[in-house]
Amino acid sequence: MPKALIESLTLATDDDRARILFVMEMDKMKSIYRQTYLLDQSRRETDAEHSWHLAMLALSFSNHRPEGSDLLKIIKMCLIHDIVEIDAGDTFAFDKKGYEDKAERETLAADRLFNLLPSPEADRLRALWDEFELGDSAEAKFAVALDRLQPLLSHVATEGASWVSHGVHLDDVLVRLSPIREMLPSLWPVVEDILRIAEEEHILLKVDQ
Amino acid sequence: MPKALIESLTLATDDDRARILFVMEMDKMKSIYRQTYLLDQSRRETDAEHSWHLAMLALSFSNHRPEGSDLLKIIKMCLIHDIVEIDAGDTFAFDKKGYEDKAERETLAADRLFNLLPSPEADRLRALWDEFELGDSAEAKFAVALDRLQPLLSHVATEGASWVSHGVHLDDVLVRLSPIREMLPSLWPVVEDILRIAEEEHILLKVDQ
Repeated sequence: MPKALIESLTLATDDDRARILFVMEMDKMKSIYRQTYLLDQSRRETDAEHSWHLAMLALSFSNHRPEGSDLLKIIKMCLIHDIVEIDAGDTFAFDKKGYEDKAERETLAADRLFNLLPSPEADRLRALWDEFELGDSAEAKFAVALDRLQPLLSHVATEGASWVSHGVHLDDVLVRLSPIREMLPSLWPVVEDILRIAEEEHILLKVDQ
Repeated sequence: MPKALIESLTLATDDDRARILFVMEMDKMKSIYRQTYLLDQSRRETDAEHSWHLAMLALSFSNHRPEGSDLLKIIKMCLIHDIVEIDAGDTFAFDKKGYEDKAERETLAADRLFNLLPSPEADRLRALWDEFELGDSAEAKFAVALDRLQPLLSHVATEGASWVSHGVHLDDVLVRLSPIREMLPSLWPVVEDILRIAEEEHILLKVDQ
């Protein structure tokens, strides 16, 4: 960090200094590249871009959210769900090996990152992240479903480039996308049709392959 | 758009199809590069990244927001305030020529982009964008102040690279950042100190230069 800023920050309260250091740490989300591509296929998207896009999906599909659920909570989950990747890195959805220690790596990351903030903000955001990971509440279920829908747009636009390069199976994708069936049922026929075409075109591997 | 998706989308309702086309259009925010750099100076940040970062500032500094103001509204403004740049492009904050027709270009963009959504979502988000642009409500004032604070972090990390390359004057920056003084007064001493150092080091031009 530049020396000038360290000196200037001594003029802030302890809590404000902590908040500034937290938001500066968050900048690293712009340097974590996911497996999914921009729709124009020019490059892979960053975690910061994915998280923004997800929050925009939450706004756009807000009338589909569970009755009585809290939109602010859903959007907060969309914004923070991936910040642990600053320490833990991005794990591709169909990387079975990477998933073996994903939870452990991400919990350590959450312990460090959220605690950069002053409490109670640290505790409140950490509790939301835990709730998203657990996936039990109405808000978490809806945010998870959006997190499955967003990369599907990329898979379609790039003709499944990241599926093809990783040799992904249709049955694994069906399991992965099943939160969409539950939480955004009116979209499920579209999803099924996209996957059917992907299988026909050998973009996704069949179960027996 | 891929032919397969157009066919699959016929299985969605008219409103859902409109929502999907809107969120796909939003992907273009990942290809609009701002003048401000990532803190590691590796490249300029995209509009999508800036908008996510701004929403994270809103979360991190939420206890500074005006009493009785609506955090959900503030975060929505952070998320959507720059989507007009998909059509209108990014106008650098100190580009006086570019500002001459900025409002006109952005209003045309808002007319097109928000109306990709079904009403009433289109009308609700457009009203929020208008409110942010007008800057009169408590929520708009707070979101604008965050929008001034976020790039300052980049200016500090890059030793004012975009200020230097555009020959920016200290007095223009003071006017530009004044919403921070009003809405985040506890941070103003830090901001003033950063600008004082930038002027001493000839990163910002003095009034008479």
